[in-house]
Amino acid sequence: MDLHEPVTPFAVLDADKVATNVARLRGRLAGTGVPLRLHVKTAKSVEVALMAFDGTPGPIAVSTLAEAEAFAAAGFTDIVYAVGIAPDKLTRVADLRERGVDLVVLLDSVAQASAAAKAAVPALIEIDSDGHRAGLAPDDPAVLEIAGILPEVRGVLTHAGRSYYAYTPEEKHRVAADEVAHAVRVAERLRAAGYAAPVVSIGSTPSGHTPVELTGVTEARIGNFVFLDLVMAGLGVCAVEDLALSVVATVIGHQRDKGWILTDGGWMATSQDRSTAQQKIDQGYGLVTDLDGVPYPDLLMSAASQEHGVLSVRPGSAAELPDLPVGARVRILPNHACATAAQHDRYHVIGTGSRTVRAVWPRVRGW
Amino acid sequence: MDLHEPVTPFAVLDADKVATNVARLRGRLAGTGVPLRLHVKTAKSVEVALMAFDGTPGPIAVSTLAEAEAFAAAGFTDIVYAVGIAPDKLTRVADLRERGVDLVVLLDSVAQASAAAKAAVPALIEIDSDGHRAGLAPDDPAVLEIAGILPEVRGVLTHAGRSYYAYTPEEKHRVAADEVAHAVRVAERLRAAGYAAPVVSIGSTPSGHTPVELTGVTEARIGNFVFLDLVMAGLGVCAVEDLALSVVATVIGHQRDKGWILTDGGWMATSQDRSTAQQKIDQGYGLVTDLDGVPYPDLLMSAASQEHGVLSVRPGSAAELPDLPVGARVRILPNHACATAAQHDRYHVIGTGSRTVRAVWPRVRGW
Repeated sequence: MDLHEPVTPFAVLDADKVATNVARLRGRLAGTGVPLRLHVKTAKSVEVALMAFDGTPGPIAVSTLAEAEAFAAAGFTDIVYAVGIAPDKLTRVADLRERGVDLVVLLDSVAQASAAAKAAVPALIEIDSDGHRAGLAPDDPAVLEIAGILPEVRGVLTHAGRSYYAYTPEEKHRVAADEVAHAVRVAERLRAAGYAAPVVSIGSTPSGHTPVELTGVTEARIGNFVFLDLVMAGLGVCAVEDLALSVVATVIGHQRDKGWILTDGGWMATSQDRSTAQQKIDQGYGLVTDLDGVPYPDLLMSAASQEHGVLSVRPGSAAELPDLPVGARVRILPNHACATAAQHDRYHVIGTGSRTVRAVWPRVRGW
Repeated sequence: MDLHEPVTPFAVLDADKVATNVARLRGRLAGTGVPLRLHVKTAKSVEVALMAFDGTPGPIAVSTLAEAEAFAAAGFTDIVYAVGIAPDKLTRVADLRERGVDLVVLLDSVAQASAAAKAAVPALIEIDSDGHRAGLAPDDPAVLEIAGILPEVRGVLTHAGRSYYAYTPEEKHRVAADEVAHAVRVAERLRAAGYAAPVVSIGSTPSGHTPVELTGVTEARIGNFVFLDLVMAGLGVCAVEDLALSVVATVIGHQRDKGWILTDGGWMATSQDRSTAQQKIDQGYGLVTDLDGVPYPDLLMSAASQEHGVLSVRPGSAAELPDLPVGARVRILPNHACATAAQHDRYHVIGTGSRTVRAVWPRVRGW
């Protein structure tokens, strides 16, 4: 099968780029001695996860119990469910644990800890290192109160949400260093109080790519790096050439007086993620490349409805609209790989510069 | 089953509200004599479509061939594929036609018309009534050129994209009247040139709810009205109480100093649609109600990551944050029903004011 054959729109994965992205991150982590815990929420693909671990299941983080169940069925037994646990979900967690999966939950409240205790499920305590989402402040007395309730204090977990807004090397370093310092400090408090708390889990793709002292950290929970995206390129984490995921769409018309090319790839295919609108360079709904992955100069997917995409030249650019007739196929590089991938049930897998589809890999869906 | 049982997040459909919304639109159309062609892209549900037609298949519009195939399998035989045809897709169209389905395509170029002729597929010519998407200008000479190529000129189709930006009754009326006038005028040009062109298809949910003279129109292609959403409420098309779709999420934590309640419903469950940000009242990622559908005063889903939602009081409001403990379930009313529904594979169907799940209805996915 060739990239001209599947019905558009569809998701394409450049496995060569995935391999390069994996090698780069693993090279960096190797220098620190901290092992990777792959966050599978981006790719939601067993095949991609196996690429990150040389073909054998390794430690993963999941964003849904559907992921935990699917990856457990594929032989992954070391799993952190990295979203604060809803008490109702502990039955499913306990079911997986009974099947030999070391599935650990995350929490930051006494109510959750009591439920985890009742279900005999070990937990990580979530620490808020930068005010961006969930978690307890490092000095919150509730940390020890929760530890006292839990059946097993596995350790602590932080997510550097602020890293997605860190543009300079100094700011990136500060965010990553804060994340490490806060996590390690809470683990030390727990150990001083008599809890083993062996795990200190940090993670975000930008901080994972930032050289920072990781003493005391026991795992780096990173996911987006397998694909990367325009947000990561905008943050300086990677180059546009590193992006492994794209969406193939077909030209279905033109509005020549407006400088528009219309495609059959709307937001149903790309998602509505517009995160680059908050960055220095707004990439619209994505950058447009030819079917071989070579970008057209300054051509953006500038607007979207459910099943229509509008391609046009970046405002202010002198680039000319390429001559793309009805039926021509293009690829759209995504703002946010997690969101774009989520719109698809499978990946059509290619190599760099090749249009031959080597494989079709399914994705996990739902909750 | 009760709304407390399914794993959150999940989509809930209030079938009583669907019935009321259907009755309201059909009442309006009955007064005009113009039949409904239900656009199934919003609900993507055979069961919802059957509600719109008293239990027997009626004329529909689809946004993907996957919808056409699924609805054809359920007995729907009168189908318009209302996205400009990509020539590669004509094989699948012709396959459905051979199975007795009157599937008609849409196009606005000579290239598409030549491909339709080769595949012997009838087509509607797309007319651009307000500059918002695809289609030919009503006076474009290409209209007759295309008609000359087609094996069968079924008629014309317009979509009033501008109606999503029409806030006053006067502006709504102008947009709807323009849509009708342009479509009818082109049909008359075609008939004067000797083509039957029996179909004059207009459609958008706002214009479908606007009283306007429809002489010459043969069908109204409307979809969103079955569910309605906060964008439609913001346009004055409906009240918040009319919204039939919502997403149930569970409280998983708090950041009390920030005034945040955290839930397990992130953008994966609601979509990233933020269309109300362009309206007078920005509803964040949606309005929050209790499990019975009663809104909490001024409580919004104000931020989202993949599997986390943040609930907080609308800026400037004097409302207090409700006391929602870990484990409590809430419902989120969506900005854009088409986008939110697309994040889910099924609907849990209830009646107004009831928490009993009457049925689980699947949705069509993919392309």
